[in-house]
Amino acid sequence: MISFRNDYSEGACPEIIEALVESNMTQHVGYGEDECCFAAKKAIKEVLEYEDCDIHFLVGGTQANLTVISSILRPYEAVIAVDSGHINVHETGSIEATGHKVVIADGNDGKLSVEGIRKAVKKHEDEHMVKPAMIYISNATEIGTIYHKEELQALRDVCDELGLYLFMDGARLGAALTAEDNDVEFDDLCKYCDVFYIGGTKNGALFGEAVVIVNDDLKKNFRYMIKQRGGMLAKGWLLGTQFQVLFEQGLYLPSAKHANELAQKMQSEMKKLGVSFFIETTTNQIFPILDNQLIEKLQKDYAFQVWEEMDEHTTAMRFVTSWATKQEDVDAFLADFTKLVKG
Amino acid sequence: MISFRNDYSEGACPEIIEALVESNMTQHVGYGEDECCFAAKKAIKEVLEYEDCDIHFLVGGTQANLTVISSILRPYEAVIAVDSGHINVHETGSIEATGHKVVIADGNDGKLSVEGIRKAVKKHEDEHMVKPAMIYISNATEIGTIYHKEELQALRDVCDELGLYLFMDGARLGAALTAEDNDVEFDDLCKYCDVFYIGGTKNGALFGEAVVIVNDDLKKNFRYMIKQRGGMLAKGWLLGTQFQVLFEQGLYLPSAKHANELAQKMQSEMKKLGVSFFIETTTNQIFPILDNQLIEKLQKDYAFQVWEEMDEHTTAMRFVTSWATKQEDVDAFLADFTKLVKG
Amino acid sequence: MISFRNDYSEGACPEIIEALVESNMTQHVGYGEDECCFAAKKAIKEVLEYEDCDIHFLVGGTQANLTVISSILRPYEAVIAVDSGHINVHETGSIEATGHKVVIADGNDGKLSVEGIRKAVKKHEDEHMVKPAMIYISNATEIGTIYHKEELQALRDVCDELGLYLFMDGARLGAALTAEDNDVEFDDLCKYCDVFYIGGTKNGALFGEAVVIVNDDLKKNFRYMIKQRGGMLAKGWLLGTQFQVLFEQGLYLPSAKHANELAQKMQSEMKKLGVSFFIETTTNQIFPILDNQLIEKLQKDYAFQVWEEMDEHTTAMRFVTSWATKQEDVDAFLADFTKLVKG
Amino acid sequence: MISFRNDYSEGACPEIIEALVESNMTQHVGYGEDECCFAAKKAIKEVLEYEDCDIHFLVGGTQANLTVISSILRPYEAVIAVDSGHINVHETGSIEATGHKVVIADGNDGKLSVEGIRKAVKKHEDEHMVKPAMIYISNATEIGTIYHKEELQALRDVCDELGLYLFMDGARLGAALTAEDNDVEFDDLCKYCDVFYIGGTKNGALFGEAVVIVNDDLKKNFRYMIKQRGGMLAKGWLLGTQFQVLFEQGLYLPSAKHANELAQKMQSEMKKLGVSFFIETTTNQIFPILDNQLIEKLQKDYAFQVWEEMDEHTTAMRFVTSWATKQEDVDAFLADFTKLVKG
Repeated sequence: MISFRNDYSEGACPEIIEALVESNMTQHVGYGEDECCFAAKKAIKEVLEYEDCDIHFLVGGTQANLTVISSILRPYEAVIAVDSGHINVHETGSIEATGHKVVIADGNDGKLSVEGIRKAVKKHEDEHMVKPAMIYISNATEIGTIYHKEELQALRDVCDELGLYLFMDGARLGAALTAEDNDVEFDDLCKYCDVFYIGGTKNGALFGEAVVIVNDDLKKNFRYMIKQRGGMLAKGWLLGTQFQVLFEQGLYLPSAKHANELAQKMQSEMKKLGVSFFIETTTNQIFPILDNQLIEKLQKDYAFQVWEEMDEHTTAMRFVTSWATKQEDVDAFLADFTKLVKG
Repeated sequence: MISFRNDYSEGACPEIIEALVESNMTQHVGYGEDECCFAAKKAIKEVLEYEDCDIHFLVGGTQANLTVISSILRPYEAVIAVDSGHINVHETGSIEATGHKVVIADGNDGKLSVEGIRKAVKKHEDEHMVKPAMIYISNATEIGTIYHKEELQALRDVCDELGLYLFMDGARLGAALTAEDNDVEFDDLCKYCDVFYIGGTKNGALFGEAVVIVNDDLKKNFRYMIKQRGGMLAKGWLLGTQFQVLFEQGLYLPSAKHANELAQKMQSEMKKLGVSFFIETTTNQIFPILDNQLIEKLQKDYAFQVWEEMDEHTTAMRFVTSWATKQEDVDAFLADFTKLVKG
Repeated sequence: MISFRNDYSEGACPEIIEALVESNMTQHVGYGEDECCFAAKKAIKEVLEYEDCDIHFLVGGTQANLTVISSILRPYEAVIAVDSGHINVHETGSIEATGHKVVIADGNDGKLSVEGIRKAVKKHEDEHMVKPAMIYISNATEIGTIYHKEELQALRDVCDELGLYLFMDGARLGAALTAEDNDVEFDDLCKYCDVFYIGGTKNGALFGEAVVIVNDDLKKNFRYMIKQRGGMLAKGWLLGTQFQVLFEQGLYLPSAKHANELAQKMQSEMKKLGVSFFIETTTNQIFPILDNQLIEKLQKDYAFQVWEEMDEHTTAMRFVTSWATKQEDVDAFLADFTKLVKG
Repeated sequence: MISFRNDYSEGACPEIIEALVESNMTQHVGYGEDECCFAAKKAIKEVLEYEDCDIHFLVGGTQANLTVISSILRPYEAVIAVDSGHINVHETGSIEATGHKVVIADGNDGKLSVEGIRKAVKKHEDEHMVKPAMIYISNATEIGTIYHKEELQALRDVCDELGLYLFMDGARLGAALTAEDNDVEFDDLCKYCDVFYIGGTKNGALFGEAVVIVNDDLKKNFRYMIKQRGGMLAKGWLLGTQFQVLFEQGLYLPSAKHANELAQKMQSEMKKLGVSFFIETTTNQIFPILDNQLIEKLQKDYAFQVWEEMDEHTTAMRFVTSWATKQEDVDAFLADFTKLVKG
């Protein structure tokens, strides 16, 4: 069975494993105040070309989202997201559990739109309603689409105008930054975002998300928040080491590029075979709409995920690749797929 | 510099590292629903000699404490702990952040007493006060002491009588179960506790705590709680693999025993040299009261923690050993210590 | 200036004022454990023809909603409501502030539909999403529509099938029960609802909502919840006295009927004049779509609320009547209105 | 049966009742944005001799405490109080329910001490602990004692030094300001406090606490907090009217003085009869230690509260007077008491 179920099915890049093995018996200071974390932060700041930010390493995405958002909002403030936003659907109400409403706004292709934000803010006009105070976007989005520079600038502008913070969930930031049609680079991020994170879990690390706080107003006492929410890893250097390897050795973008290329190969080959798509992406997630009988046959050898029933006979499925996906597995899949379709 | 600062300064047992390396490129199902987790649960249940419990693997102790406690209590209910309890002092109000008061009760030597519990419950008599609904103990305690069978039975009895759940934080459970004066075994735990956890972070693992839910009433939908609180590790098999190694290979207790023996060696040698102790323990934490000048000299080569100022001239310090502490480092320390004391 | 802005612009029915004046210097037990509260509960139970329920008096609607909902849900559970539900829009995220998501479901005319509930539940399928555990409806709804017996039975059935609690916000229950097309009576409510409340604030009292808990599972320790959420009135007999008067003297339904009749008079007269409506109701709120110039002229002498812009030239407005609205004020308004429309 | 059980056993001053009756059918704007509220605020500001503060009227004390405190603190911040503080014991964990720890500090006679604050702050030194950010005091305290100018100034100074806000619960502020040994006046309060409230419930009103926010940093969006926590009264003018009467007609302090005098009369007469006290006060609460047999006899005709068991034979009781307590009832009690004691 070969899995295209998600981008967290394997462990970590060999370089990371090597570094962890090597430093295993070295004594470190706890709670992320060690040399590995410091080095990793330095390496990330260099890539961001931005010195004046705070970086914190957290274990996972939900943890990062809830810690960042609850750190920023006052009790009556809310965060704006699109309906399909990870915090809205797939985190078991973790934001609400910290006391805050997720306000849904309109968007396109999984992306929040300026008009959506304006409308959402306008509807919340007085103290009988929550007060939107930040926007949450993810790049790449839940459905594999990406934000372009122009879009990010427009979001930044409307945030400035309306007094909102801009928070970017970068669980799949690598996939976004290495997409064929992408025009955003690492050194743009601190211009657009008040806070964002660089996802490690889905791009080469065993686990770990690097939260980057750009806006000075949001920096204070963030370590208290991490600890309170249960996110302060005792052996924090495990996070530091992983990001150190990814960024000092320049592995982050190539790992993501590898994943994108294999997924895009699958998408283009399927298209050639006449498959239509729930949405066409340029990243490591693709969403072909397949005949249910075909799906059943494919499932004997390949694992992938149901995305949405389209009608009685067809279903949109999600295939995901990662830094660890093997070219030969993609080739084998495409050969089998072609055989079954042409069958 | 040799560190006796804590028991989470190094990585993991070589056997764990080996297993992680070996399975690094194997594809696993996410979120803890993989074969490694299943095997680890099986191995733990065998050691507990108790089949009918639910086991969940979480990354850290604060996360385990807040997830368990907030899963059990209704909004107006409170958890009883001793003043020095980890949840009361060292978790940045994580329990309160989930909405619940920690009610302080009397105890002895860091341990909760039956009288303390009775008094605390009695004081909370009506709806103008929180309602105590569970007790929190840690074994070993914050100050390295342990609960004996008789004490656990007495706590169980008073909990049954007063309608309280018994939750044991086992971040240092290994240290407790291998202490020289201990009479509690793994297969006793399910008799005494409604829920407890077996600490991996401080005893051989990179990270990880195995939460064991014994009481049927507390089992339902616990995975929702883990996800909501940000504790559901995407690559959950990393936790499973570690506990599988610890319990299938019988490493858990020996790792703890090693730590205890080295700390106890330090304690007994210091005693011979006339040192008095803040509290005498039988586990891997010791608390000598040292002259401040001596401390300063020791700190040139050794790291350890200030525990409490005793007077102008002396301070209680904490020295901690772990599964990873080397006999030769303890020997070196004791040689230097003896030299400095004898002057 | 005559106000049709809302149904809480005046004080209380003369009978209530009289009772409060009369008992002003009588000494009462505090916190709602007084004879007036007991008598009021007895009177309400008689009207409900249901003995086996618990009744609690709270000061206001938001307070009642948040106390009831947070009392019932476990941390990861959510409440289902329509988009226009009061708890979703107009309570400043009070439900989320207690940790729970409000899941939006489809409905018609401000009312939750069975299909909407099914769809919402189906979408929340595992522990990565919140778990819907109750539905919230209000009767009358935010836009003045009411639930009929058949609809309530259908909601009850789907709740039983899917394991959901049914909570009815009755801030405007009087308006619903006395609407011309209503077929629900007080003695039906305990059959359909697990918990509901009978609104006093908008129907004759100075303030006060009587929460009725029907389902035994939801009764335990509710007074703890009231106290914790800040809703336990020291002089609780003020609430008891008011509900005692309303129900012992049979004032509740007539007060609401009065309000309905005047609003309906306004609606039918406007219709005769060719006015169209945002929605046609049978209760004390009406929503005429008026020309903006007409609105401006009316506002010189009458206060009422903007509901929704329809287009450049017209706006849906809300007019509300209450137990206190005077026939002569309605007559005066209609005369002026007619004059202005006929020009 | 005559009750000395508490200071909220009766309704409101006749002047307040009169005003409520008079304005009963007047139409008001809702939610506290009416003329009565504006007038009341003006009257209070005059008495405070401080224009630049925000005033909000809430229904009750627990509501005021939880709304103020949760408005001010960031998630990891805590409030310091003495062990006997109302928020610590008698509000069912309402502060914790908003996510914040109440840190207990040492004090004397129910009053927080500067040393207690220093010690509490010193103990909370890093991100593994909550961060104390405000102090909570009540004046008069839970046990009827009061703060003098010198004490308030010392608290203010230590707050400024340590970066803490000072919040004064004034549920019994009247009793404090009219105590014989008091040297604090209304126009001092804004100098000492960042925020405080003036209690109406226990001093002449049916209900109501006037929250005064002095510190600019704490003013923003407070109405959002009130609404979210369920404290925004629809008919807000009921609160405005009551405070308007109390302050425009100068009833606040005289009402409290009346209560103090009667309680002090009881205390001094009891002392003459050889009674000892749990604590001697100068306000409207007194705490005689009485023989259990005597208590039993008194309870036939008088209601009062058990405070604390002293030994097998004696118990400290609490007697409370209010603006509504009648001289003749105190006289009757003292006559009976004397007879019983003298036997």
